[in-house]
Amino acid sequence: MRNSSRSQVDPFIVMDVMEAARRAEAAGRHIIHMEVGQPGTGAPRSAMEALCARMRAEPLGYTVSPGLPELRARIARLYGEWYDVDLAPSRVLVTSGSSGGFLLAFTALFDSGARVGVGAPGYPSYRQILRALGLEPVDLPTTAGNRYQPVPANIAGRDLAGLVIASPGNPTGTMLDRAALGALVEATRAGGVSLVSDEIYHGLEYGERAVSALELTDDVYVVNSFSKYFSMTGWRVGWMVVPEDHVRVVERLAQNLFICAPHASQIAALAAMDCGEELAANLAVYRRNRALMLEGLPRAGFTDIAPPDGAFYVYADVSAITDDSRILAAEILEQAGVAVTPGLDFDPQRGHRTLRFSYARETADISEGLARLAAFMEARR
Amino acid sequence: MRNSSRSQVDPFIVMDVMEAARRAEAAGRHIIHMEVGQPGTGAPRSAMEALCARMRAEPLGYTVSPGLPELRARIARLYGEWYDVDLAPSRVLVTSGSSGGFLLAFTALFDSGARVGVGAPGYPSYRQILRALGLEPVDLPTTAGNRYQPVPANIAGRDLAGLVIASPGNPTGTMLDRAALGALVEATRAGGVSLVSDEIYHGLEYGERAVSALELTDDVYVVNSFSKYFSMTGWRVGWMVVPEDHVRVVERLAQNLFICAPHASQIAALAAMDCGEELAANLAVYRRNRALMLEGLPRAGFTDIAPPDGAFYVYADVSAITDDSRILAAEILEQAGVAVTPGLDFDPQRGHRTLRFSYARETADISEGLARLAAFMEARR
Repeated sequence: MRNSSRSQVDPFIVMDVMEAARRAEAAGRHIIHMEVGQPGTGAPRSAMEALCARMRAEPLGYTVSPGLPELRARIARLYGEWYDVDLAPSRVLVTSGSSGGFLLAFTALFDSGARVGVGAPGYPSYRQILRALGLEPVDLPTTAGNRYQPVPANIAGRDLAGLVIASPGNPTGTMLDRAALGALVEATRAGGVSLVSDEIYHGLEYGERAVSALELTDDVYVVNSFSKYFSMTGWRVGWMVVPEDHVRVVERLAQNLFICAPHASQIAALAAMDCGEELAANLAVYRRNRALMLEGLPRAGFTDIAPPDGAFYVYADVSAITDDSRILAAEILEQAGVAVTPGLDFDPQRGHRTLRFSYARETADISEGLARLAAFMEARR
Repeated sequence: MRNSSRSQVDPFIVMDVMEAARRAEAAGRHIIHMEVGQPGTGAPRSAMEALCARMRAEPLGYTVSPGLPELRARIARLYGEWYDVDLAPSRVLVTSGSSGGFLLAFTALFDSGARVGVGAPGYPSYRQILRALGLEPVDLPTTAGNRYQPVPANIAGRDLAGLVIASPGNPTGTMLDRAALGALVEATRAGGVSLVSDEIYHGLEYGERAVSALELTDDVYVVNSFSKYFSMTGWRVGWMVVPEDHVRVVERLAQNLFICAPHASQIAALAAMDCGEELAANLAVYRRNRALMLEGLPRAGFTDIAPPDGAFYVYADVSAITDDSRILAAEILEQAGVAVTPGLDFDPQRGHRTLRFSYARETADISEGLARLAAFMEARR
């Protein structure tokens, strides 16, 4: 048997970093993890207790494909609480993480060969999922001046069937403000380009709050997840909001592609939505960490950084230091004991001159990591 | 925004039955459920306790993409226990249910437009997942004489890139014995056809044990799940065994398409594999139910049934009674208060003359259902 052409997706370079870090730890070294894209915290405590109680009370069979009705209703209510948007629960579909959302969205919207724009730098799996589905990802190089977000000029004349945006973005943490988002909504509408808005980092903001595409239009697929703000990465549960007249099509696809999102995770997720206090405490940690990063990274010598409006990442241009971010990341791990991610996963063209630093872990780790980075850079001078 | 062509998958007809049954129950009627394809039991008790203990002890972040190493090792050991096959844990990939396995298998093996054979009758989502991925499902009409399983003659001259087989099958419960499976392995090998073997109902057998394709060849993708024998449908966790030289490709795809299977479900699944006593008790119920069905269905007048070697279904040819199985199923629900599935989901060409009866629920329900079916058929004479 042979593998298909479309299965030949790029490896994640961060996996090499994680494996090197694991080997270093196995050899007895202490490593600070600034490479990981997930909270160090688990699901809220009451969410876990709700699950333990429920699974003792009844068998967790398949749920209906769009998700538990009470969870869909609660998610719809969140749009009122966060954005003052009145959303019908029928438009909310519970998914197997945002990964499941992207698989459904891309399948529901695009036929084989369609060209779909993704900002560069951006979350690597957009490109790989598109390729695996027989679609053609089109990298849209963004600029620091545009906060590493695409602008209408990037999509003009590109013959795009779709555009994926992310605000706050990974790896940059930069956001589209209302005007910038509105310009993209208008440009995609005018160009007949289907818009997919990745809002997985919503709730993790440090100044202005993130604007949902649903505040501006109903003609959009919004993908979100319980992984980040709700601290439930391993639970693989998220949601998608689609236009009313797309619900039935996406529901049928979901029945066949997934049957349903994990029942246990749906129960935990519903309870997590009422754990505001614990989630606010998590956010306070990220806020402290971010402040340390914004002070410590430039002091260490990483001066050219994107404004991290949200999420838990800082993206640094290191072209003044190196023209090979893989080698630099390897040196930082080897000499400083700090794991960081070279930018190539996020931007195949220009990522050899960038690094992503994550500040999702404990504050003590962030302080120690910054001290090590400063010493490393000092030693290079 | 418009939906893609490939997103226009067929609706599940069983969903209409389930909705009609739900309405009848809401109106106060008592309905016997012979339409559902899942156990009435939940996950084994120790599996749930293991999960409660673990999630209190540590955050459930992402697992590595191929799954928890101890779960992969335990699954590999199962192949020794069940089939006397020596399997390397590295070839086992934990998936988000068998659904996730099919998505990965079809993506890893086939490029857009490839023709993939599926037996008819068969599990409807094979066809729909293939279509959603831009592939072309090719129905292979099977015969009662061949136990509703494809034979080499069915695949010759069909220009197939792949073949999906299932033993025990859904909706029939019929199995491929070693000779029949061997003939398909040889025919696909000779024809350069990639073989995907759905073994999700293994462990639920009532005479001969099911033969795994891995007993005959390493050149196959085997898809399995914790949903049926392990009674964990809603947990969305399964596994796939792939050839050694396909592991890296499938692992990379899984990283991008799923990140990982649900962590909580993986923990519960690992514990479930050592709950033999509880699982044997579940099987004993199906065995009693099956004996009742094999006696009661013919007595009621459903005489033309496939030999249900495994799973928890009986597939009946009702062409002597009706030429519209949807109407017959609606009448049975309306007049007898028994929900059954018309065959059209499983065989779009010939399913208007067949019904599927499930015996996955409690024995008392099965007895009552059979009595109602007998009375219904008596009244029609």
